[in-house]
Amino acid sequence: MSATDRYSVLFEPVPIGPVTARNRFYQVPHCNGMGHVRPQAEAAMRGIKAEGGWAVVSNQETEIHPTSDLAPYAEGRLWDDRDVPALRLMTEAVHDKGALAAVELAHNGSHALNHMSRAPIFAPSDAAVENGIPRQARAMDKQDIRDLRRWHRAAALRARDAGFDIIYVYAGHNMTIAQHFLLPHMNHRSDEYGGSLENRVRLTRELLEDTREAVGDTCAVAFRFAVDEMLGADGMQATEEGRAVVEMLADLPDLWDVNVAGWPNDSATTRFQPEDGYQNEYISFVKQVTRKPVVGVGRFTSPDTMVSMIRKGLMDFIGAARPSIADPFLPKKIEEGRVEDIRECIGCNICVSADSLGVPIRCTQNPTMGEEWRRNWHPEIIAPKDSDTGALIVGAGAAGLECALQLAKRGYDVTLADAADAAGGRVLRESRLPGLSAWMRVADHRLYQLGQMSNVRLFLQSNLTAEDVAGLDVRHVFLATGARWRGDGLGRSTHRTPPRIEAGAAVFTADDIMDGRLPPKGPVVVYDDDQIYLAGVIAELLARNGHDVTFVTPASVVSPFTQYTLEQDRVQTRLMELGVTIRCNGVLISQDATAMRVACTYTGRTEEIAATSAVMVTERIRETALYDALKQQGGLQTLELIGDAASPALIADAVHSGHMAARNFERAPQDIEADWYRREITSLNGGRGE
Amino acid sequence: MSATDRYSVLFEPVPIGPVTARNRFYQVPHCNGMGHVRPQAEAAMRGIKAEGGWAVVSNQETEIHPTSDLAPYAEGRLWDDRDVPALRLMTEAVHDKGALAAVELAHNGSHALNHMSRAPIFAPSDAAVENGIPRQARAMDKQDIRDLRRWHRAAALRARDAGFDIIYVYAGHNMTIAQHFLLPHMNHRSDEYGGSLENRVRLTRELLEDTREAVGDTCAVAFRFAVDEMLGADGMQATEEGRAVVEMLADLPDLWDVNVAGWPNDSATTRFQPEDGYQNEYISFVKQVTRKPVVGVGRFTSPDTMVSMIRKGLMDFIGAARPSIADPFLPKKIEEGRVEDIRECIGCNICVSADSLGVPIRCTQNPTMGEEWRRNWHPEIIAPKDSDTGALIVGAGAAGLECALQLAKRGYDVTLADAADAAGGRVLRESRLPGLSAWMRVADHRLYQLGQMSNVRLFLQSNLTAEDVAGLDVRHVFLATGARWRGDGLGRSTHRTPPRIEAGAAVFTADDIMDGRLPPKGPVVVYDDDQIYLAGVIAELLARNGHDVTFVTPASVVSPFTQYTLEQDRVQTRLMELGVTIRCNGVLISQDATAMRVACTYTGRTEEIAATSAVMVTERIRETALYDALKQQGGLQTLELIGDAASPALIADAVHSGHMAARNFERAPQDIEADWYRREITSLNGGRGE
Repeated sequence: MSATDRYSVLFEPVPIGPVTARNRFYQVPHCNGMGHVRPQAEAAMRGIKAEGGWAVVSNQETEIHPTSDLAPYAEGRLWDDRDVPALRLMTEAVHDKGALAAVELAHNGSHALNHMSRAPIFAPSDAAVENGIPRQARAMDKQDIRDLRRWHRAAALRARDAGFDIIYVYAGHNMTIAQHFLLPHMNHRSDEYGGSLENRVRLTRELLEDTREAVGDTCAVAFRFAVDEMLGADGMQATEEGRAVVEMLADLPDLWDVNVAGWPNDSATTRFQPEDGYQNEYISFVKQVTRKPVVGVGRFTSPDTMVSMIRKGLMDFIGAARPSIADPFLPKKIEEGRVEDIRECIGCNICVSADSLGVPIRCTQNPTMGEEWRRNWHPEIIAPKDSDTGALIVGAGAAGLECALQLAKRGYDVTLADAADAAGGRVLRESRLPGLSAWMRVADHRLYQLGQMSNVRLFLQSNLTAEDVAGLDVRHVFLATGARWRGDGLGRSTHRTPPRIEAGAAVFTADDIMDGRLPPKGPVVVYDDDQIYLAGVIAELLARNGHDVTFVTPASVVSPFTQYTLEQDRVQTRLMELGVTIRCNGVLISQDATAMRVACTYTGRTEEIAATSAVMVTERIRETALYDALKQQGGLQTLELIGDAASPALIADAVHSGHMAARNFERAPQDIEADWYRREITSLNGGRGE
Repeated sequence: MSATDRYSVLFEPVPIGPVTARNRFYQVPHCNGMGHVRPQAEAAMRGIKAEGGWAVVSNQETEIHPTSDLAPYAEGRLWDDRDVPALRLMTEAVHDKGALAAVELAHNGSHALNHMSRAPIFAPSDAAVENGIPRQARAMDKQDIRDLRRWHRAAALRARDAGFDIIYVYAGHNMTIAQHFLLPHMNHRSDEYGGSLENRVRLTRELLEDTREAVGDTCAVAFRFAVDEMLGADGMQATEEGRAVVEMLADLPDLWDVNVAGWPNDSATTRFQPEDGYQNEYISFVKQVTRKPVVGVGRFTSPDTMVSMIRKGLMDFIGAARPSIADPFLPKKIEEGRVEDIRECIGCNICVSADSLGVPIRCTQNPTMGEEWRRNWHPEIIAPKDSDTGALIVGAGAAGLECALQLAKRGYDVTLADAADAAGGRVLRESRLPGLSAWMRVADHRLYQLGQMSNVRLFLQSNLTAEDVAGLDVRHVFLATGARWRGDGLGRSTHRTPPRIEAGAAVFTADDIMDGRLPPKGPVVVYDDDQIYLAGVIAELLARNGHDVTFVTPASVVSPFTQYTLEQDRVQTRLMELGVTIRCNGVLISQDATAMRVACTYTGRTEEIAATSAVMVTERIRETALYDALKQQGGLQTLELIGDAASPALIADAVHSGHMAARNFERAPQDIEADWYRREITSLNGGRGE
């Protein structure tokens, strides 16, 4: 059976109310840090998804009113007609490539910040809010509810005018007022909007009816609903009220987009949820209750799994956010029988981190994500070579592999050398740590692709010197030589007062651990001044290995960066459950043979923590020896550091760096320079109505 | 001596290089959460400062290049010519009112985020950065330094073209590359830019010289410099290298704008630094070293102090950021002999919190701050009344006082009633807590102003019922009845699983404490699920009072909101130094006569904390009894909740709410509605150069 036949069910058209999706690939709404702040960038990104074969391309939560103001975060906005042109850019880009465009209208209730608008914060009942802002939410009165319905209806009409084909009502992720009304712990009302489930679902029903009445003749009405909060009896459960809601509203929406709440559950990382399809057990009932099409998600990248889910009747559409980010051309590649070309999502949530930070989306696997408009990067297309020259890339880690792959795709002769026994560099080493095995996909994808190409040579166990390079007759060299972890405790918090490593101290670096050099038995401190993710992973490894681990960090929580990837709760919980002792707010003073001395970040008071060894995870040193030697030696036309050797950062940054180097190779300097300046700016044409 | 004579020295013109300031009032650069994201709002705000009499009105740190990208924060931006029109809006608004406009050019070095630009992060030497981002900074090479100088020079030329009169070189707040080069712990270079102070100051000198060479014929070159890091020998000291830098560069800039670093030291709050002029001891030497004019800051609001500082030769200009926010008309009021009309800054840093959050500035004292463009609010002008009616305001707290004052200024007959013995409401009560006495200025200013007006009647000890109101013959009632703290432990973290307060538990609310009802001796827990500031203040009060205090909170730090006001380090340190035990990451389960039971927010594990009493600071209940009764009773034309009674929030929000109610009184509903929608939006006109 050909690939086309085998997967043909995925390419059947499916009607959704008055519109029809060309196939079963459905890009569900996902945030991206562009939104109304960077609408041209968003339109370009969504257009690429449509080009890649998705039948439906959604935007993201879209504020319908100033009482649902999410500034400074860059989500969608549809407060009034002034927001329509920006959204029309997106629908035109999506339609241009044959897909349907969906908009996720949202009133965020007490999840809204209203920092900028300074508007009241709405909730079913008076209450403090969960997101740390210094204001309480106010119970909506009947007039507020009428207003809300009016705003939602007006937004639906505007969305239709902007060209959207599918218009969402959104009750998920614990982020919207419709869901807030559903949840008993937030809804203590005694009127017809509170009490029984019938009453609590009333607002949702009205929003669905209002939307259908307003735009249902031409647009489909989708309902995004979290069937389970994954809190057992403390929250909504798919077996209880979650199912009852679906039964009550069964055929009212034209489409059910179902998932689990909150966001960290819906967008679970591979570190904590390695299996795809992890939502199936919660959402599988939905199709038995409604006759309308159902879309579900679960980080699906395998077409066989997709086919199986359709055939089993679990869902009608293969929903995807992250897999569509890692590979916007996933549907096309399946359709064209090129499954092995799919860049599979590694489930690291770097995409989410960008939205959390209010800046444009990025992706570890797909360096073009978020750069479609700014740099005019296409995930599948790259300019052909400008000359018949070749390039040497030293270092087959994330940056080197990506640079080699893109240069090879451009048609250059590529030589890739690495000192290690196996390619992958940092990716290979980190993927062997607990929970990170999926990260190896970054190297695997590129190694496979490089293996298919005739203009690429890969040399392993090849520790090149400057003289070796001189003997190779190359004029263009990219150095992806990475970085090594320092062992002296210097890091974010200690540059003013460098720590002392006393004689006799048994100090290990993160590289030692990844190389399998583990501390001896006895109390070990993992000292984390890196504050990203690695120290937490190493502490987990040591604890699982039976070590008596204390985790010390100047930060107030373990691995603070993982807040942005929705993992922090899980990281700290896992370490505590493994018996790791957590000592936050402590800065390293010294380490000797028996103890680490630490100062409180607040008071400066020092204390000793018993530790016969210490693992320092603080800062990295760029590996530039070969670069320095080659620079000294001279004679090269191109000599460029990329990846961690240029600037130690995330794997996503290394891939991006390698990609950019390949794109910019033999390009005019003024064009390279110009890319940096592209950004969207604020209009000076009024806004006060005058 | 008349006020004019007494303060005449403050109104002398002072030359600054090629330009002349009309008086000695100098609004130093300050962030405001508007910047390039909201340029029309910024221009309007700065124009109001100029109208209020400031001789110099500065903008804020202004990114000169994509390697100094601060997105998503809303600072100034001058990457290329596309940014000029937005800045010209500001210079025109400032010139229109007779002031000089200054721009603070900045390259933020390793304080930059570069999240959006994804550009390299620059530093004097390779190092991890302090701000938690997952990338390390790279040492600038000679070409980078040449590029930086080129970018800075180009930005200076563009700033001149945008109409600025004063152009800054900025080495302060530990936020810019020029200062980073000065600091030995960041600069380990072995070339001519590192090592000796002469070498470390080289980049600053070059930037000053470049700027003078580029624009010095028409623009003044100002240098903002932090003379002391307030870290003793661990940092730059005014008595050591701080002075030496001033000596080296003495007459190179046209103006010295000197302060202390970091930002929490420069912008110290009254809670931790109650005295104004707290920087004088550090900066007083500067005028002895340079012949150029000197501007200093220190939350100055007293004209007598200002005169004294000029006469003593401490400074030539009275610098101000926060006092100019609290009262943009401070100079005018002094000039016009209306010193008693000055709205004095209370030093709460709510202004800073808005910038920290990336949203437009606000001010506790000045509710029009940040609303000059959006709502067209002027700090000194309000529309006259539309009719000869009168209004009753119930509650003389922050919202009620402001509403009464503005209605009275509009010319309405105002009756203000409060049940308490003294006016001030929450402001009065909180101002009696440790460190918050300056907050009483919010009430004092308004009470004084109201006392000057003949159309206002204030009734204290006046606990009105609905029947009382009916007897008053008013048709317009504003209810500023506030909110009370709940004692049942319900708050942000406990709505799903409400805590149990067992029989025999001695539970106090924040109101009890403010009313002087303190817990008995014996271990007391202050349980903070409010997470703003109040619980920390109460814990301080109890600890100072000799109580054995444990502070328990579901948050990871004490008073997390105070991170945004630059106080969190000091809050937690003070509690620890007072002997308070800190237990973060704990959610209240129950309280009985001897202990509090708490669950870990991560693992759920429970523990008991000995506590014969507990103070609950979790959530507030709106006081709406009178509102509900009046609504029931009917017959009023206006019945409106304002302040905490409408939505418990910050004092700043209450003042804003009262102000808005007064502005909107008898205004057309559609005009009121329209205000909410005003915002700046992104231009769709390219940006990619095509």
